[in-house]
This record gives sequence, C-alpha cells and structure tokens, in this order.
Amino acid sequence: MLEQLKKQVLEANLALPKHDMVKFTWGNVSAIDRSQGLVVIKPSGVPYEKLSMDDMVVLDLAGKRMEGNLNPSTDAPTHLILYRALADIGGIVHTHSPWATSWAQAGRGIPAFGTTHADYYYGEVPCTRPMTADEIRRDYEVETGRVILETLAERRPLAMPGVLVHGHAPFCWGKDAGDAVHNAVVLEEVAKMAYQSVMLNPALAPIDDVLLDKHFLRKHGANAYYGQDRRT
Amino acid sequence: MLEQLKKQVLEANLALPKHDMVKFTWGNVSAIDRSQGLVVIKPSGVPYEKLSMDDMVVLDLAGKRMEGNLNPSTDAPTHLILYRALADIGGIVHTHSPWATSWAQAGRGIPAFGTTHADYYYGEVPCTRPMTADEIRRDYEVETGRVILETLAERRPLAMPGVLVHGHAPFCWGKDAGDAVHNAVVLEEVAKMAYQSVMLNPALAPIDDVLLDKHFLRKHGANAYYGQDRRT
Amino acid sequence: MLEQLKKQVLEANLALPKHDMVKFTWGNVSAIDRSQGLVVIKPSGVPYEKLSMDDMVVLDLAGKRMEGNLNPSTDAPTHLILYRALADIGGIVHTHSPWATSWAQAGRGIPAFGTTHADYYYGEVPCTRPMTADEIRRDYEVETGRVILETLAERRPLAMPGVLVHGHAPFCWGKDAGDAVHNAVVLEEVAKMAYQSVMLNPALAPIDDVLLDKHFLRKHGANAYYGQDRRT
Amino acid sequence: MLEQLKKQVLEANLALPKHDMVKFTWGNVSAIDRSQGLVVIKPSGVPYEKLSMDDMVVLDLAGKRMEGNLNPSTDAPTHLILYRALADIGGIVHTHSPWATSWAQAGRGIPAFGTTHADYYYGEVPCTRPMTADEIRRDYEVETGRVILETLAERRPLAMPGVLVHGHAPFCWGKDAGDAVHNAVVLEEVAKMAYQSVMLNPALAPIDDVLLDKHFLRKHGANAYYGQDRRT
Repeated sequence: MLEQLKKQVLEANLALPKHDMVKFTWGNVSAIDRSQGLVVIKPSGVPYEKLSMDDMVVLDLAGKRMEGNLNPSTDAPTHLILYRALADIGGIVHTHSPWATSWAQAGRGIPAFGTTHADYYYGEVPCTRPMTADEIRRDYEVETGRVILETLAERRPLAMPGVLVHGHAPFCWGKDAGDAVHNAVVLEEVAKMAYQSVMLNPALAPIDDVLLDKHFLRKHGANAYYGQDRRT
Repeated sequence: MLEQLKKQVLEANLALPKHDMVKFTWGNVSAIDRSQGLVVIKPSGVPYEKLSMDDMVVLDLAGKRMEGNLNPSTDAPTHLILYRALADIGGIVHTHSPWATSWAQAGRGIPAFGTTHADYYYGEVPCTRPMTADEIRRDYEVETGRVILETLAERRPLAMPGVLVHGHAPFCWGKDAGDAVHNAVVLEEVAKMAYQSVMLNPALAPIDDVLLDKHFLRKHGANAYYGQDRRT
Repeated sequence: MLEQLKKQVLEANLALPKHDMVKFTWGNVSAIDRSQGLVVIKPSGVPYEKLSMDDMVVLDLAGKRMEGNLNPSTDAPTHLILYRALADIGGIVHTHSPWATSWAQAGRGIPAFGTTHADYYYGEVPCTRPMTADEIRRDYEVETGRVILETLAERRPLAMPGVLVHGHAPFCWGKDAGDAVHNAVVLEEVAKMAYQSVMLNPALAPIDDVLLDKHFLRKHGANAYYGQDRRT
Repeated sequence: MLEQLKKQVLEANLALPKHDMVKFTWGNVSAIDRSQGLVVIKPSGVPYEKLSMDDMVVLDLAGKRMEGNLNPSTDAPTHLILYRALADIGGIVHTHSPWATSWAQAGRGIPAFGTTHADYYYGEVPCTRPMTADEIRRDYEVETGRVILETLAERRPLAMPGVLVHGHAPFCWGKDAGDAVHNAVVLEEVAKMAYQSVMLNPALAPIDDVLLDKHFLRKHGANAYYGQDRRT
C-alpha cells in the first residue's frame, strides 16, 4: 500500500516541472497514509529527472525516517506539522512558483477577483505575517508550519487549500498528492491573473460573496453539479 | 451530418490546449446545427487528452440531452440562450484564458488600441455589468447569457464576436466552432497587447474610427481584399 | 536565381512562427532581387504550415504580379514603396509581434535603454505619427510606407532597421530576408526589456551616446570586432 | 584535462538556450584551470546549435590564444580580469537574459525580497554605476570587469555570484562553469519575481537579515543541511 502512495508522490512531484511550477529542485510534494501515520516525501535536492520510487523517503509523524536512504526535503518538518494539525488533508506541496511567490514576497494575500479563484479557493488566499527573528532562529521549518496554521485560523483546509508564507512562497494541500499539486497550479494561474487585474484596476475589490459562493459551491458544495461524479 | 459537427466540436475543443488557452478542463466549445436545432457541446470536467467524439453531448435548444452519456458542460445554458438569440452564430467558446480574464476581473472593456484588434473586433470588446445577487442565485448560467446579450446590445455578433463577463471570463463566438476558437485566441492576444499598451500609456485613447473601419472592413466588409477568397 | 530568393523568403517566413513572432497568418516577409527589380513575397492569409516555395508571389516594383497564382500579402504595397526608396535594404518583414506592437499601440518610440538595443538599433526606434483620415482612406498600404519613410527621415536604414507604425505594429528590414527577420526578433526582445525597465524606472533616460556608439560600432562599424568575419 | 574543461564549458554554453537564457548568440560561458592558468571560452558569434568542443578557445590569463582557430568571445577580457581578481571562482557566464537585463537597464540593484533570492545571493544583487565615457572608449571590456570588481567590493564572490552592469546586463560566476550558469538561471528567476513583487508593492523592503542568513546559510554555511552532501 505504501508502494501505491510512493507512486502517487513520485507522480505528483514529476507533475511540478510538467506544469512549469519549478526551477531545478525548488519544490516538494508529500502524502500521508492516515491509517499507518506515515508520510512519503521527496528527498532533498534531487533533480526531478533522476527521481525514482526508491528515492522516496518515508517518515513517521514525529519525523523519524522509517524507510529510504536519502535525506528528506528540508521542508519536511513543515509538512509534518500541517498533517498533524489538519486531519482532512492527504497531500502537501511546496513550490516557489513565480506568480504566487511574487505575492508572498510583496506580503499581500490574493483577493478573490474572479470566478477562477472562487472555483477552488473560498475567499482571499491569505499571506502570513512575517516570522519573528526568534521563530526563524529556533526551529525554522516547524515555525513555518505554525505560522501557516495561525494564518489559516478557522478556515476549512479543503476550502482554503493554500497559504502564502510572507517573504517566502506558497504551501498548498489537498485530499491527496495529486489534488495538492492541482491546487498549486490553480493558485499560480490565479496569482497571475490577480496581478494583471490589479495593475489594470488598482482599486479593484473582490467579487461579491454571492458569486464566490455560487462558484465554490457548484464545484465543492453538497449540491455540486460540475463534472461527471454527481448528477443534478 | 451530426458526426461532422461532433468532429468539428471535438477539434475545436482540442485546439484550446494547443493554443495555450486553458488549464486543466477550464474551457468548452459548442456548435449548432441550425436545420435540426441541435447543439453539440463538450461534456463537463473531462480532460482534453481523454476527449473523444463519443463523449460529445447533443442537446436541443431547450437543453434536453438528445445523445451522449455524459453531463454537458455546466455552461451549456449560457451557450443555448446565445444560440437562441443570435441567429448568425454557429459556434461558441468559453475559456478562462488569462489575459482576457484579467480584463474581465478588472471590470474593464478592452479598447481598440490597434489594428490587430480592428482586424477582428469592430470596436471596444465590452465588459458586462456585475450580475446582481438575484441573477446569480436564480438561474446563474442562463442569466450569464442574458447579461452578455444585454451588453452586446445592438452590435452585430459577427462584428463583435466576444464579450467579457464581469468578474468571470470571456465568451466568444463565430460562424462555426473553429471560427469561435480563432476569435478567442485573437482576443487573448489583443488583451495582452492592450494591457501592455495601457501600462506604457495610461491615458491611451482608442484608434481613430477611420483606421478601425479600414482594418475591419478590409477583412470582413463587402469589398474585403485580405486572403485568397476574394480578388480585387 | 529567383528560386534561391523564393527559398530564402520561404525560410524567413517560416522562421516567424519558430521565433514566436506570429499568431495565425499575422506576418509576412519579402526580399528583392535588385538586378531584376523583382520582389518575392508571402501570399495573403496562407497558414505558415502550408506554405511552399510555389506559393511565393513575384511582383515587379510597380506591384504587377509576374509569377504565382495567389494574391500577395495585402501589405505588399508597403513593402514595394520601401524597396523603391531604400536602396540598401534587401528584405522586409512585417509582424504584429506583441511587445513591439504594444509600444506601437502606445504611440511611443523605444528608447535605447541598453546595449542589447545598441547592438542592432542605432538610437531610439521611432514610432510614426498617427496617419491622417485621408491617408487611411486614399491608398492605405502605400501611405503606410510613406509615413515609415517620413519617420525614418535621414537615418541610414541598416542602422535603424525598423520603425513602429502608430496604432499598428512594426516593420523591419535588413540586407536580406533572414537579416530582416533577425532584426525583427531583436526588436521584439528589446521592446520587452524596455517595457520592463521603464516600469521599474519611469524616469529612465536612454544610455549615453558613447555607450551606444561603442556597441553599435563594435558590431557594425568599419572596425567591427564581433564575430568571426573580421579580425582585429 | 583541458578536454574535460572544454566539455564542461561546451555543456554550460548549451545549457543557456535550454534554460531560455539567450536569443541567437547573446551569451558566453568560460571556465578556468587554475593549475595551468588557462581559460576555456566560447568563440564569438557562433550559434549554439553549431558549437562543438573543437570550437572552444583556450586563452592564458593575459588573453593570448593558446589553442583554437576562432576568435574568442568579445567579452573575453571581462572574463579574464575577473578570474585574475577573484581566486575563488571557476566559471563565468554573461547573458542578456531579459529580466535581469531589465533591472540592469533600469540601473537598479535587485533587493533580496524573498527566500528564493536568499538561497543563492547573500543580499541585494548590486548594479554598477554607469561607466564613464573614458572607460567606454579606452578599453571597454577590461573596464567592464573593473567596474564589476569595484561594485562587488568586499563581498565574497561565491556569496554574491553576480553583478548587474548598468545599462548592459548581468555577469554571473560560480565554482565552475555549470555552477555559474545555475546562478545565472537563478538570478533571472529572482529578477522576474522581484519585478512582480515591487509592482504589487512599490514600497517593498528587503526581507529581514535573520531570514536572509537562515536561507543562505542552510544551503551554503558550515552547517548547511540542504541536499544529500551533508548530514545534520
């Protein structure tokens, strides 16, 4: 069964260069097996074109390496704290995809300027506060996860499947590794269009809540009627 | 004969990823057989790389499914109201192509800043007003079509083959499915250049009507002299 | 010999999509055989992927079709007036490449902001004045050429191998068809970087004349020392 | 052994078009064999698709050609003065990559706006002052190197592996030719994101020194813990 999860994580990692989400090794995807409490994650600094299933690293939720010969991604502690806190999520991805990262560097959340955004993110994608010197020095990758959780606050993680880390880049998640990458690609496209819209109209306000609801809920609500899974 | 139309609609849908007009499943093309009053449209949420002719959905103009096992695009009601109101058009395409969508999100029409625009769109590509809460809640996809028609007003649909829906994205059309996609690709390029031009010159005015006429009419007027179809 | 020229013109036309300079059929390249006074030009509205040597149209300098079954590019009269006035040039290209077109639409010349520009264009790439209603109505394509020549003024055409037509797009030229396309690709790259530089620094001034001279002349002057043709 | 170096330099040059860093021949990479005091560099003006190992030019540190039939890059004197002054570096690359060049043209250094930057460049990537008329006229390529060194000042070259030359473009370096190209690709990506961030937030300040330290040192410090080479 973990073989299946390793395969999903490998494929999700390989989807990053395919979708132009990464330069070099700047990204990592993980997924969790909730029944065993084990996380599969990309190794640190290995080029995507050389990644194989055997390179995947298996960690328990405390960060102990259970399988694999390589170091896990340096961001593993961030992934683990998110898995521990957010029971609904099954996969996590971190990239420095350029449009979303530009908003993170600017220290601005991405307002819901249109229905593309509303189809996946239920409101403004928030940007964390800057981390304190103490947080950065102490246990940086864990604290990164903490400030993400602080920023996510009471939002349902599958209704807000990503957060921008101030001066850094986005972390996204989803119900599994593939869904997390899907949400990250959406965020990148949404970040690009939000940038362009706000340049055209600097005073631009987010779309009305009624439109936000309509689009998010026709895809994700109890009465969703998009796609082939549910019939109305 | 509908096989022929299904083939055209399939090919027009596949042209969207080819022209970088869509992420994932974010776009749909339809075409109409006016003699039978039947519309062929893409199914909802099916990835382009898996689309086949058999997946195409046939609807009558009231929206009743006449053929096909899959759900039609959720935007089908928008397509149908446009076909009912605009007798000249034979194909419709909806995408979230990023440049045109950025203008739609900004709530701005795209002025005719140059001859590229004038070659296909006879004046400013208008943006609808925001839809009301009532319109969004009531019968959203039908009302989307209504606000497009309200915005198109007295314009000839083949001289203004697209409208931006406020906070959403463009709908484009043409004499058939392929022509609709062609117009959508043009709109995306025109939207990009208009953005860049207005950043370089925020006070920029549209081109003179004489130049607009010259370019639109040398391609589309009674005395058109572009291409190989007509000789002068 | 004209076969050789047709081959060059065909290849130069095919280089346009290869360098991402055109959508659909939005571009045309020609070249002249000065000894015979004959111009080879792309036919109007034929997709690049279907172009063959036999499609090339041969015109005399008065615009009379001497060979070929297809209509020449509608812009042929612009090409011809430029060939008649500028004895040094051997090839001409017209595209709506997006960055250069954005400057043309904005009605702004492209200042020489850096050495990339100075390596090929000896000073600001000028933008024409808007054409008058009379010019547009009378003999539009010929008048387009006239306003280009008026704008080029006393500049040597191979030191300023392109002009932006106001509200329209660039025309570029060179010693032959391939050189013209090369200059057009350079202009597009230079236009992109100039846009970005002026956004970063709206008050930006052009580079100093000493640096402009240095770069232009080390490639194009009597004592050029770039490349393998001349030794110093 | 120089064969090995030629191979590295060839591959590093070929990596430039692969990473979309160059148009035509606008870039050159070199590397040095410190034990022999010999530099291998790309020939001037030769298209990348025609480059072979035999085209590589070998120079001594005074610029005398020791091997090869072609002229070295016109920028060779800039490379040589940098090798002479900076004992730590093993490879140099010069490109006109568009985002970094746009900052150079704007005359602005690239502030460290995020952790992507901090992972490779330890602080603002500086832009040189404009060169004087005397410097440009006298011995331009050597003086270009001098102004780079003046700007780099006391910084360690492997902690600041690139400088923008005012009105020109970036020069980057690294411990070898491949590392230099890697740093140049990073700079281009960082320049793009910095542009976008500063457009979103014109008053944007650089990230805090604590975050800068954290990211630079976890990759490059004595206790680095990124990748597979070092374990913590």
